Amino acid sequence: MRANLTPDVDLATRLFDALREATFDGVGVTRDAYGAGEQAAHDIVRAAADQLGLEVAIDAAGNMLMTLPGTDRTVKRIVLGSHLDSVPQGGNYDGAAGVLAGLATVAGMKHAGFVPSRDITVLAIRAEEAGAWFPTSYPGSHASLGRLPPAVLDVKRMDTGRSLRDHMRERGFDPDAVAAGTCLLPPASIAAYLELHIEQGPVLDAERIPVAIVTGIPGSRRFRAARVVGEYNHSGATPRRYRADAAIALAELAHRLDEHWGALEAQGHALVCTFCVLATTEEAGFTKIPGEARFQLDLRSVAPASVDAMVAELHRLIGRIEARRGVRFELGVETGSSPSPMDEAVREGLARAAQAGGIACRTMASGGGHDAAAFAQAGVPAAMLFVRNQNGSHNPHEAMRIEDFAAGCAVMTRWAADASA
Amino acid sequence: MRANLTPDVDLATRLFDALREATFDGVGVTRDAYGAGEQAAHDIVRAAADQLGLEVAIDAAGNMLMTLPGTDRTVKRIVLGSHLDSVPQGGNYDGAAGVLAGLATVAGMKHAGFVPSRDITVLAIRAEEAGAWFPTSYPGSHASLGRLPPAVLDVKRMDTGRSLRDHMRERGFDPDAVAAGTCLLPPASIAAYLELHIEQGPVLDAERIPVAIVTGIPGSRRFRAARVVGEYNHSGATPRRYRADAAIALAELAHRLDEHWGALEAQGHALVCTFCVLATTEEAGFTKIPGEARFQLDLRSVAPASVDAMVAELHRLIGRIEARRGVRFELGVETGSSPSPMDEAVREGLARAAQAGGIACRTMASGGGHDAAAFAQAGVPAAMLFVRNQNGSHNPHEAMRIEDFAAGCAVMTRWAADASA
Repeated sequence: MRANLTPDVDLATRLFDALREATFDGVGVTRDAYGAGEQAAHDIVRAAADQLGLEVAIDAAGNMLMTLPGTDRTVKRIVLGSHLDSVPQGGNYDGAAGVLAGLATVAGMKHAGFVPSRDITVLAIRAEEAGAWFPTSYPGSHASLGRLPPAVLDVKRMDTGRSLRDHMRERGFDPDAVAAGTCLLPPASIAAYLELHIEQGPVLDAERIPVAIVTGIPGSRRFRAARVVGEYNHSGATPRRYRADAAIALAELAHRLDEHWGALEAQGHALVCTFCVLATTEEAGFTKIPGEARFQLDLRSVAPASVDAMVAELHRLIGRIEARRGVRFELGVETGSSPSPMDEAVREGLARAAQAGGIACRTMASGGGHDAAAFAQAGVPAAMLFVRNQNGSHNPHEAMRIEDFAAGCAVMTRWAADASA
Repeated sequence: MRANLTPDVDLATRLFDALREATFDGVGVTRDAYGAGEQAAHDIVRAAADQLGLEVAIDAAGNMLMTLPGTDRTVKRIVLGSHLDSVPQGGNYDGAAGVLAGLATVAGMKHAGFVPSRDITVLAIRAEEAGAWFPTSYPGSHASLGRLPPAVLDVKRMDTGRSLRDHMRERGFDPDAVAAGTCLLPPASIAAYLELHIEQGPVLDAERIPVAIVTGIPGSRRFRAARVVGEYNHSGATPRRYRADAAIALAELAHRLDEHWGALEAQGHALVCTFCVLATTEEAGFTKIPGEARFQLDLRSVAPASVDAMVAELHRLIGRIEARRGVRFELGVETGSSPSPMDEAVREGLARAAQAGGIACRTMASGGGHDAAAFAQAGVPAAMLFVRNQNGSHNPHEAMRIEDFAAGCAVMTRWAADASA
């Protein structure tokens, strides 16, 4: 890296402030996918890109490409991307940090008169928050790559009940072109995709490390509508041996599966196991033994074998508990996803960049899903940088120190300069 | 017992049919306390008592006394009682079986020309189903004994929101007299109270025994609004050691307390332990580790020491789980009641009566509460007979074979005749 290549963190700071002001909802920020909130964020970012003199292009799905042209425009480009939507009453950093890090990086290059050998495109992606708006993963990223399955255009936004297609059209975009695979970023045209994102978890904060290089985005096996059926009986008049208590059967399952997780972790497995819902289904006061309970179980790991080991234990425990407690478990439909390992060469480049900049970092698996998964699935060498943050994400208390963000931007800048020298 | 003293089970059968017909709600029977359903039942039973030539009196709270006069009307009387209200969409036998058993008994005496030495009063009690109508225990029984605390008249019926006082007055009764302690059954005037009731649990059915003599009505310790508070965190991004998972903490507590119950039972303790509610409080899909869960815990035993042993273990487990899992339990307000042991002399008399009649019976603790507890608390020698039933109670599938009911009536008749010979 040229010694004078410094990311323009002040620009990012001003843009964070502008984003917060424009999308504050009284509690947190709300940038609804393909809605007014997300659009306000795109408008702010676009004005900054215009002012920097970047080439701005909007694809058929509304993703925004802000490009610092390279000396050779025919070779594969570098993409620095993330999303600008947020969950309702969310925080200011989830997503936006990655887009502003990209802008800070190319702004620093501009200021220093650095002209990369290849295009560097900052990508502002649409609609990443699948849990909040459209119940599908990464529609913006997939569309930016020309890889959105047309059927996905029919999914309904959870709050409006209107389709992704309608919302795209309403914003002036072209869902028919999206369905046809029209795009500005064919996977083969991308040398590497790098996404900076807040960590969303407590690890970096607890370990006092500002930045992490992500090893992969986990796959999952999920049981969203599982239940256990026993028998409702009089809570006073039914002795222990005559009970088929659904609540206790579920408590035993959850407790024993959690113990198995601990045992697997002690053996070196890296995974997470969460009973997101665990609940008796009827309230009968003190007169009834619960005859039914339901649960949601979420298992995630970068290593499919670790998740599979938990599911095997789940089935073993269910068999044992059913036999002993006279209940019946129904796991319901299983959903899930495959893990997306991050590109090893890019990760090595990031590690070198961090070391050269004297920035402490560690490697870690991502917990949540990110747009980078869509790029990895398309065969693009993809990688992620996590920045330490406080108070998790998807909530208004989400926080990130600007010096940690600056450390992440410095790694990004050095890597991008090396990759386009 | 005179050899020709036979309870009039046919009368009871006809009355069961009439009660069902009059109070069928399309699903089960509904006899709302101090409402039209309970009153319809009282009217049917009163007509039968009139036809039998019993002395009928209604007390200030609407409890109905149907008396077969004894030769000496100055000595303490025998009361054969139970309630005529039901839960909404309940079964035909819970409560009514005890009143009709009393009528069948005195009808049998009438038919045989048997005149008891003392009055035998069949008592149709008001408003026993505390979980369904008025959230207070045994207001009808307490009032029949002149022992209803006046403040209880202010409790509101759960569905109408109107006070017990209003409901009494609306039916033509006299809540002011009730408040003043006016009654027809001062405790000192009662030689013994006997209540026949369906078992409500599966034990007699499983063990193929038609009748049980009840040892006592359990006391309880109850935590109705308990919760555990942890931390909401990203379910993917929060490793095991950084979690404060309220759901898993509660699952561990419930599972371990259930195991302790098993251990106590193996040592000879008789009790029941029910987590009537066990539930995470927020639904955030697969994005959050539960930060809060709530539960209701109901501990019951005829032996206070057994319940106390469970509460001690509860506190020990909570301390351990809090320390290990970074959560905080709040047990909330504790409520409960003292156990009511049944009178030993009456129980012995019942056992002799069963043996003399060749009727198989066992002893067992009651699971639920019953009017008999109010009589025991007033110092009246009180006892209960359970009759085998199917499908529990408080539901429309509640069932009882008439031959089992007849066996219970035969024990009641022989005992009442012996106690009034």
